[in-house]
Amino acid sequence: MKHQLMMSREDVSAFLRREFPQIYMQGDIWHVEEVAPLRAVLRMDYHESQIRPGGTISGPAMMTLADLALYVAILASIGPVGLAVTTNLNINFLRKPEPRPMLGECRLLKLGKRLAVGEVSMRSEGSDDIAAHVTGTYSIPSA
Amino acid sequence: MKHQLMMSREDVSAFLRREFPQIYMQGDIWHVEEVAPLRAVLRMDYHESQIRPGGTISGPAMMTLADLALYVAILASIGPVGLAVTTNLNINFLRKPEPRPMLGECRLLKLGKRLAVGEVSMRSEGSDDIAAHVTGTYSIPSA
Amino acid sequence: MKHQLMMSREDVSAFLRREFPQIYMQGDIWHVEEVAPLRAVLRMDYHESQIRPGGTISGPAMMTLADLALYVAILASIGPVGLAVTTNLNINFLRKPEPRPMLGECRLLKLGKRLAVGEVSMRSEGSDDIAAHVTGTYSIPSA
Amino acid sequence: MKHQLMMSREDVSAFLRREFPQIYMQGDIWHVEEVAPLRAVLRMDYHESQIRPGGTISGPAMMTLADLALYVAILASIGPVGLAVTTNLNINFLRKPEPRPMLGECRLLKLGKRLAVGEVSMRSEGSDDIAAHVTGTYSIPSA
Repeated sequence: MKHQLMMSREDVSAFLRREFPQIYMQGDIWHVEEVAPLRAVLRMDYHESQIRPGGTISGPAMMTLADLALYVAILASIGPVGLAVTTNLNINFLRKPEPRPMLGECRLLKLGKRLAVGEVSMRSEGSDDIAAHVTGTYSIPSA
Repeated sequence: MKHQLMMSREDVSAFLRREFPQIYMQGDIWHVEEVAPLRAVLRMDYHESQIRPGGTISGPAMMTLADLALYVAILASIGPVGLAVTTNLNINFLRKPEPRPMLGECRLLKLGKRLAVGEVSMRSEGSDDIAAHVTGTYSIPSA
Repeated sequence: MKHQLMMSREDVSAFLRREFPQIYMQGDIWHVEEVAPLRAVLRMDYHESQIRPGGTISGPAMMTLADLALYVAILASIGPVGLAVTTNLNINFLRKPEPRPMLGECRLLKLGKRLAVGEVSMRSEGSDDIAAHVTGTYSIPSA
Repeated sequence: MKHQLMMSREDVSAFLRREFPQIYMQGDIWHVEEVAPLRAVLRMDYHESQIRPGGTISGPAMMTLADLALYVAILASIGPVGLAVTTNLNINFLRKPEPRPMLGECRLLKLGKRLAVGEVSMRSEGSDDIAAHVTGTYSIPSA
């Protein structure tokens, strides 16, 4: 698979803020760290809205990070498609994350005309261990 | 599988509010509707914190509903275990939900000593169509 | 969702034998027991090719049963489509199956123009306990 | 995670042939290509028992390859455990494989006392594209 970068990190960040303002409602916690063809790295700040007792990060917060990383990798690779929707997401929770920001690193395994499939490894910042792993599928609308 | 009901609807509701106050931080939107051995029905109010543009309900909100329905079905069937943790969750998004409350109906397929596995069907209140479907696994701590 | 039955049990059985003779190569072990709109029940005979030491049935044999049950439910609901392909399959193994035939009962949760999603519960014949549970997605070719 | 290699490629190969002779019943098609701590590469020969019309490889054959790659990575990392069993397997079919042998490359994401979780990328020999991707969980018996 050869793919070009269709949106820069700045383009994707601006697109998210314009099209999905509600994800920032609880705080400015989502940051696009890197984009490349078929790849993206997202950062989720450690924020009270995502925390469970004992300092751990909630499962849904990690699912949101993974879903967003998949979407950003798709945007970066095919350009702005507001209507792509998640059809399947499978998450394995592997270790309790640290009370720190988390990074979600996405790699698209397939980018077809109708479906995109990717995997996301999530780590606490500064850690090598994967705290949670996702594979997910987006349905891409016909142009 | 024969199982008894170990916690009533009122017991489970009180347990959730005492042990997981943070899930009610954004609003009192989670309601245990029914419990039975190996079964539970949860209700998620239609609340601004769960909504995406166009009135649709966010994917992570539905994942939270499913995860909570699994946990309540386990609590109802084995009693209060604060430390059960989700290890795997697989969700299929099937239809755009209505701008209404959602119900998550959980059925445990297995309740072993170490692992519990269940499925959750999620519908908009008043609708027969399944908007999203989850299968999930919880790891149960040794007594 | 309202759907009609587009192929009878006999039609589907004949279609499978004509289009997929290779699945019967190791023995005449696959039987369509029932079809209805959005539903199908498949039977897998207990056959040496599917058995592991101790009399248990192999995981891939159960995945094949589930995949076939999904395909038959789709065929019964939309008619003969040779080119539908599985895009995702998620299986939970719950209990060791008995040394007996297995039944796979499929219910389609969504039957769209592009994607069909269903779940399959697999039991040893004569048992109420679910031995394995699958959710799967088929991609349906444009007409 | 630091892990040692507990069984060599030769050890694992001999163990599989001794403990699981039935997987070789249809032909000597499964080969352990590499093992390392938390990693394994398995090769599946292109064999008539795995083929569908048009020369493509069956879905269950790919699931078997992935399941075996996970098991070999676990064996290599913790030593001979005959009774580890698959509890969950999630597969995404991405591209039609070539009419050639396939390689399944496994990486364990977690190797705990009770559960091991890994991912497997499957490619046609000589191809860079991933034909199918699996994440799977094994339950490890108490010592």
